[in-house]
Amino acid sequence: MKEFIADEFRKLQDDICAALEKEDGKGKFQEDLWQHHSGGGGRTRLIQEGNVLEKGGVNFSAVEGTVHPRLRAQMKLSPDEEVNFFATGVSIVMHPYSPKVPIIHMNVRYFELSNGTCWFGGGIDLTPHYVVEEQARYFHRQLKAVCDAHHPAFYTRFKKWADDYFFLQHRGETRGVGGIFFDYLKPDHTDHGLTKSQLFEFVIDTGKTFAPVYTHLMSLNKSKPFTESEKNWQYLRRGRYVEFNLVWDRGTKFGLETGGRTESILMSLPPQANWAYDYQPEPGTAEARTLEFLKKDIDWL
Amino acid sequence: MKEFIADEFRKLQDDICAALEKEDGKGKFQEDLWQHHSGGGGRTRLIQEGNVLEKGGVNFSAVEGTVHPRLRAQMKLSPDEEVNFFATGVSIVMHPYSPKVPIIHMNVRYFELSNGTCWFGGGIDLTPHYVVEEQARYFHRQLKAVCDAHHPAFYTRFKKWADDYFFLQHRGETRGVGGIFFDYLKPDHTDHGLTKSQLFEFVIDTGKTFAPVYTHLMSLNKSKPFTESEKNWQYLRRGRYVEFNLVWDRGTKFGLETGGRTESILMSLPPQANWAYDYQPEPGTAEARTLEFLKKDIDWL
Repeated sequence: MKEFIADEFRKLQDDICAALEKEDGKGKFQEDLWQHHSGGGGRTRLIQEGNVLEKGGVNFSAVEGTVHPRLRAQMKLSPDEEVNFFATGVSIVMHPYSPKVPIIHMNVRYFELSNGTCWFGGGIDLTPHYVVEEQARYFHRQLKAVCDAHHPAFYTRFKKWADDYFFLQHRGETRGVGGIFFDYLKPDHTDHGLTKSQLFEFVIDTGKTFAPVYTHLMSLNKSKPFTESEKNWQYLRRGRYVEFNLVWDRGTKFGLETGGRTESILMSLPPQANWAYDYQPEPGTAEARTLEFLKKDIDWL
Repeated sequence: MKEFIADEFRKLQDDICAALEKEDGKGKFQEDLWQHHSGGGGRTRLIQEGNVLEKGGVNFSAVEGTVHPRLRAQMKLSPDEEVNFFATGVSIVMHPYSPKVPIIHMNVRYFELSNGTCWFGGGIDLTPHYVVEEQARYFHRQLKAVCDAHHPAFYTRFKKWADDYFFLQHRGETRGVGGIFFDYLKPDHTDHGLTKSQLFEFVIDTGKTFAPVYTHLMSLNKSKPFTESEKNWQYLRRGRYVEFNLVWDRGTKFGLETGGRTESILMSLPPQANWAYDYQPEPGTAEARTLEFLKKDIDWL
């Protein structure tokens, strides 16, 4: 089944790239094929200098090897046990030119060990530089629909998980308006009772939600005018995005510390980010209003 | 003695700010006074939009409180032991406008626990966007001189420690041409045999080396012309600086994870940084030559 999952993820990458190119109207993905030192490899795809998308990556990988000592410890594997892993996934971050178009992130992944353990993980979250409430509601409604089609408890549980995960503790801010996040979804677990195939269906449907949702948000916002001051706000918010990814994101940290492909991992970083000491937007501005939405536990439905 | 050390660090901050303002000729430090939630506080000083310095911080702090659980574990303190800490230091990062003027970092610090343990730490390292060999040699000669005045083994040991510490493992690059780094220097330890006063003299002399060395490097480079392409290289190298500070720097990570003052900690980040996918300078260019110097164990003397 792992080859089947990897194949489906490859198709998902293809479909997403095609949909983004179509909506962008100018940018074309460039592909880098690479091999992992311990086995397998990936297809890194970069879009740059489009009409809408300034820089973005849609990455597929399927790698295998012996379990890294750091993960062995985390998983409480016995030191004598010889365990290999297989991991496959699709990972996306899009940085648009316009501060009126939100940043988006999506990841779906499958992990299995040679001792028989396996699980799925993933998530989608939206980072508007300017929060448009109706669009945040639309985004969460789409995610709820895909969750509800597979399990009645998933949206509530995974929305909360996203609020907790996509959180910059040192800023007391969420990264954006959240979304869903899930990890260690194991087949036939009492938490949900879904089989491996059923979990896969949920995960691939999550992946398939990405393209229609984000191209819709691109189309709603891409023609809005913006000022230099709004662009500067975008650069500062991108600085927060960098802080989240490098300080808090477990996937990024794990990848960098265990010899993952640096350029693929760090495609999530924006083309340009700025930092200003203790910048506070004026009360009552659109920027200040956006900060008020960067909180956990907002019910967007 | 802790009040004496904190006072000397305050004076060091004053002297360094005065020297930098003089060499810059335009920028003036602005001060923010702050209190730490558990006791003590700091003087954060920011310079911006100078003639030479685009953004830089010279921070003093002296804070105290109960030892954070993370540090307790690291220090193997017994769970029953009620232990308070006192920590004071000066911490500096300077980001100049010109890609021909190097970034510099300096830190000196003193830490003591209520159980009687105490130690000093610190370091200086230089991050040129374009390595000028003669200047890297000058920089290391000055550091060797201050080390040699206090202990014959310090320069060799601390230069090696800096090479290992200021290293971006995920890039296989040092942050710059290195310098010195030291930590957990405890009084009367068999490693060096120096008393607490003697260690303090070494540490404060390290701090006092900063201003003459960096103002000299500013004066040598500040009038050199530079192109837009060189400025772009600087933005990319600043991206690496962000990566080091947020992914690998233990002080930054510890501060952010244990409730330090975020804006003071992240003053080390540049005003602007860029990321480009898999950027490789053309062979034979000044940029490619600089990358060849970003290696451990170069003997600059």
